[in-house]
Amino acid sequence: SRHIDWSPLMAEKGGYKHFMLKEIFEQPRAIRDTIAGRLREEEGDVYLEDLRLSDCELREFDRICIVACGTSWHAALVGKFLLEEHCRIPVEVDIASEFRYRNPVVNDRTLMVLISQSGETADTLAAMREGKSRGARNVAICNVVDSSIAREATGVVYTHAGPEIGVASTKAFVTQLVALYLLTIRLGRAIGTIDAERGQAMITELVKVPALLEKTLEINDAVEKTARRYMNARDFLYLGRGINYPIALEGALKLKEISYIHAEGYPAGEMKHGPIALIDENMPVVVLVPRNSTYEKVLSNMEEVVARGGRVIAICSAGDREVADKAEETLAIPADGGELTSILLSVPLQLLAYHVAVLKGTDVDQPRNLAKSVTVE
Amino acid sequence: SRHIDWSPLMAEKGGYKHFMLKEIFEQPRAIRDTIAGRLREEEGDVYLEDLRLSDCELREFDRICIVACGTSWHAALVGKFLLEEHCRIPVEVDIASEFRYRNPVVNDRTLMVLISQSGETADTLAAMREGKSRGARNVAICNVVDSSIAREATGVVYTHAGPEIGVASTKAFVTQLVALYLLTIRLGRAIGTIDAERGQAMITELVKVPALLEKTLEINDAVEKTARRYMNARDFLYLGRGINYPIALEGALKLKEISYIHAEGYPAGEMKHGPIALIDENMPVVVLVPRNSTYEKVLSNMEEVVARGGRVIAICSAGDREVADKAEETLAIPADGGELTSILLSVPLQLLAYHVAVLKGTDVDQPRNLAKSVTVE
Repeated sequence: SRHIDWSPLMAEKGGYKHFMLKEIFEQPRAIRDTIAGRLREEEGDVYLEDLRLSDCELREFDRICIVACGTSWHAALVGKFLLEEHCRIPVEVDIASEFRYRNPVVNDRTLMVLISQSGETADTLAAMREGKSRGARNVAICNVVDSSIAREATGVVYTHAGPEIGVASTKAFVTQLVALYLLTIRLGRAIGTIDAERGQAMITELVKVPALLEKTLEINDAVEKTARRYMNARDFLYLGRGINYPIALEGALKLKEISYIHAEGYPAGEMKHGPIALIDENMPVVVLVPRNSTYEKVLSNMEEVVARGGRVIAICSAGDREVADKAEETLAIPADGGELTSILLSVPLQLLAYHVAVLKGTDVDQPRNLAKSVTVE
Repeated sequence: SRHIDWSPLMAEKGGYKHFMLKEIFEQPRAIRDTIAGRLREEEGDVYLEDLRLSDCELREFDRICIVACGTSWHAALVGKFLLEEHCRIPVEVDIASEFRYRNPVVNDRTLMVLISQSGETADTLAAMREGKSRGARNVAICNVVDSSIAREATGVVYTHAGPEIGVASTKAFVTQLVALYLLTIRLGRAIGTIDAERGQAMITELVKVPALLEKTLEINDAVEKTARRYMNARDFLYLGRGINYPIALEGALKLKEISYIHAEGYPAGEMKHGPIALIDENMPVVVLVPRNSTYEKVLSNMEEVVARGGRVIAICSAGDREVADKAEETLAIPADGGELTSILLSVPLQLLAYHVAVLKGTDVDQPRNLAKSVTVE
């Protein structure tokens, strides 16, 4: 019989082996909490209680600068797609440690958006202050209430992910995507690029996400099997396009962080400009190929990898036979995520990193060399 | 005695073993040719014969979008630093295969800059057409005269690198940096952010580059020794900050392309947000740490790597004892490159990739899976 050792910490993990796994499974709840009380479904608008920027003020911006580090920077890259698509304002995304040491082009018509789970990330805080000194107003997307960045910002959109203990961010990331979606709706409604009907449609897509995520989490056992098959690879590539390119970056970062495997994310269309030289049977390639407007393009990138002997793990929409026939391995997500499919795609990538790390025996919740929040430069 | 086999191809290589090496050594000449006839030293301005945009037209732009692929995309990232620093116009850099498939925010006040050695890169050409259809005017930076992109562009700044045969771009890249510097001076003079005196100072820096490059090339034998020491590593990281972050990306791409080693470039300040978990004695880390405004920051990032058992190959300014004491290996470049130090830093990285590839016995000029110009999507 198995001896079960219940530590107080284990109890806090709610029966899960690691905080990271618990947090991955909390994502539907985290998103529900981040949406709760913020939807104005009839008006096709959202209410962001701490935004502190009126419609009139929101109309003054001619440019948005999103600044963040690590996982939050990946959320920022998704945010660029959402904001540009719906609000038609140029969005620049920058890494905080880069932004703060150049002479950034920022002024009083720039809206800065700072993303930081802890709200204490030193480089992001410094970037915010740098922007402020040049007249920029800003919105912080933070998970920790009353953190330094939240306190100093013009406005805040809190994510309500709850405390995140695992060093590798999961539920904070997906709620950052939700916060950016909410901000997109609010800004678009304020400046008139999103009308009530479009706003309603966007809200309808958003409220479907928690249930779709629950369905996506059923993939856990399948991902564990995939992890067993590829756990000994020393290198991985992750490919995506458009709004899902940052998800590829994030998937690669998860694997790096907790399994110490050298994984790199790449925009699928850039493969032929260099990385394809790396492809052989020792380099598994994770391809994000959901059914969307660039589906055919990614499929053709995937075929190039297969043609050169690469082993493809495809993350695709449920029921996609064409991808299943071509890839060595497929992991399917629900097909009806629309523009928020990026959130669903994140799940198999989080689980893949998690299971590989567990199988390799690394310290999943406290990976070597990493701190949960980077409060030093 | 050694038998020497002179093939006609060998003759074209001018005595060099590979086109790539020949082209690396041609860089001082390539830059001289790219500058020739274009300087107006007394006025502190430059003359770009095919720019076809008057001062008046240049003043109409409120945003610049640089679009490119692969190595040219790295040049674009350097261009962002130069243009924003001196012209104070927001510059967005995008990968052509990403740009063309989104719904980009571009209009008749946007200047698009397209960079392509061949002028035939399919994604870049399509991105240019996409921008044009939205009213954007554009400038192409091409090496091949009368290529498709050059022909369809509003204006062209030709690089005069001469024919580049090696698939891994070297001399085309550094001349792209020079073209971007020339464009920066011209635009800054036209819109008034660069005065005559500043323009003269920038020209003075530029004309020093070919001789500094010749001096930098003397490092070749030392780099070959370094290559012998690290050639068996399976993974590399390349770190840089600010204007030299893209040079780290480019160095990593060279190694990927011709030696098939998984090398990844990272902004040095992002290390602690993930990649530092990868650091151990099996992962050499190439750190670009010339004396400039972020020198202390990069030095501290380098120390973090060393503290975690990483093996550092530092590319630093000549005479830097502090770096030499801390790194396992140092390769020094001339200290007086100023803002154009990025060009000098490129040389040891090109040579490192070259010598590793030669030692590994790969086909340096024709690496597997890659084409010189990517004329398909």
